[in-house]
Amino acid sequence: VEGRHFRRDWSTAHDVGRKAAACNLSDINAMGGVATALTIGLGVPADLPVQWVMDLVRGLEVECAHVGAHIAGGDVTASDTIVIAVTAMGDARRPVRRSGAMPGDALAVAGDLGLAAAGFATLSRGFRSPKAAVEAHRVPHPPYAAGPQASGAGATAMTDVSDGLIADVGNIAAASGVAIDIDSSALEIPEAVSTVAEALGRRALDFMLTGGDSYALVATFSSETSLPEGWTRIGDVLGGSGVTVDGKEYDGPAGHQHFR
Amino acid sequence: VEGRHFRRDWSTAHDVGRKAAACNLSDINAMGGVATALTIGLGVPADLPVQWVMDLVRGLEVECAHVGAHIAGGDVTASDTIVIAVTAMGDARRPVRRSGAMPGDALAVAGDLGLAAAGFATLSRGFRSPKAAVEAHRVPHPPYAAGPQASGAGATAMTDVSDGLIADVGNIAAASGVAIDIDSSALEIPEAVSTVAEALGRRALDFMLTGGDSYALVATFSSETSLPEGWTRIGDVLGGSGVTVDGKEYDGPAGHQHFR
Repeated sequence: VEGRHFRRDWSTAHDVGRKAAACNLSDINAMGGVATALTIGLGVPADLPVQWVMDLVRGLEVECAHVGAHIAGGDVTASDTIVIAVTAMGDARRPVRRSGAMPGDALAVAGDLGLAAAGFATLSRGFRSPKAAVEAHRVPHPPYAAGPQASGAGATAMTDVSDGLIADVGNIAAASGVAIDIDSSALEIPEAVSTVAEALGRRALDFMLTGGDSYALVATFSSETSLPEGWTRIGDVLGGSGVTVDGKEYDGPAGHQHFR
Repeated sequence: VEGRHFRRDWSTAHDVGRKAAACNLSDINAMGGVATALTIGLGVPADLPVQWVMDLVRGLEVECAHVGAHIAGGDVTASDTIVIAVTAMGDARRPVRRSGAMPGDALAVAGDLGLAAAGFATLSRGFRSPKAAVEAHRVPHPPYAAGPQASGAGATAMTDVSDGLIADVGNIAAASGVAIDIDSSALEIPEAVSTVAEALGRRALDFMLTGGDSYALVATFSSETSLPEGWTRIGDVLGGSGVTVDGKEYDGPAGHQHFR
């Protein structure tokens, strides 16, 4: 939805297309699947330049090519603001849900945390750099290989980080009926995140733990499993409920709430 | 899209749900398939009563039950106006496209024409009856059995009437590289359409030939095929291009144009 998920003055149509595809392809990735096809429902104002739509579709196609998926169909209608509704279809040999985490499992992450949220904060203040953060907001890079790898390695639960690490890990904890503790010292803070945090007087950890739109994967694995390449252990599954950071409730902001 | 495809003061949420499902299930019907699953992408304002959404979903489910389909998933986000993006999936043993009509074929229709457009005209003038027309605008009744029947009988081309009979038959003519002549005397004009036409000083045939949102099916069949039950012959496929009515170009309004 224009104005909520993207702004035309912050992102090109190509960027918007890539991101719209990426966050849906990520949903398939987060179940350990491989996306095969997207359908696109597009609402656009009658005065939108046709080139914007062409660039959008090209962006969707470019992102799809990362996983070998194709745009299989769709529809277009007029609407006052641009609305892009993407449906992703795919195959998962062994779909990984959020409900299988067991006390004793390890919590692990694959992909970038914090960068997209730092980029959003940067753009919101009217700045255009650091580039690594701004670019991560415009076009996320979901770790597409990591989902099927985690499934193959026997991940017990998995999701992608769209609302923020604590919020999304909280979904695994709730669905699995377990508690999860995140070890903040295990999180590798990207330089751009530190730069933005310092410039805006915020804590880098806030971006890492509560920043949305990352499309990293977070999963749980039995403690006997050796983590696939690209996965980093960042915490533990325990008995109980809820999510803690270093053994305590996190005192930072909540993650993204869709209807705050 | 609220304000374009439905109005909350004209239709209940349940009606909107039924119609949103129906026009997508109709797309599967129009290829001779049977729908199996819908996914729903929903954008709603934060102040929309939750009951409206519950009623919408119930309407979607009720319509799905007509063909044995189910809501398989979806997502919800905030947006200023209500936007409902439906993706329908289904099976077609022998998918019927728009491109197979041949000169000599018969043109046939199954389902109601004109009623929904007459209902829209009625509501637009501030009236609430005749009921048959207003109800057809609120909740269309696609002839769900007719699509697979036509496929089984060997229909050479098929589509549903969403933009208006002439416009949608025109899509078959263009895709097939043929001309199609509609015999207006073969169209059975519903009483409610005549009533609305008379009250508003318009021609009943305009509603029949150019009214959208009908979700009737229109198909072409080889002249040797006996039409399945529920199908009525309304014209002929000829060599050439374009659509005529009784041998002449129709002098009424054009069908619905999405980006006029």
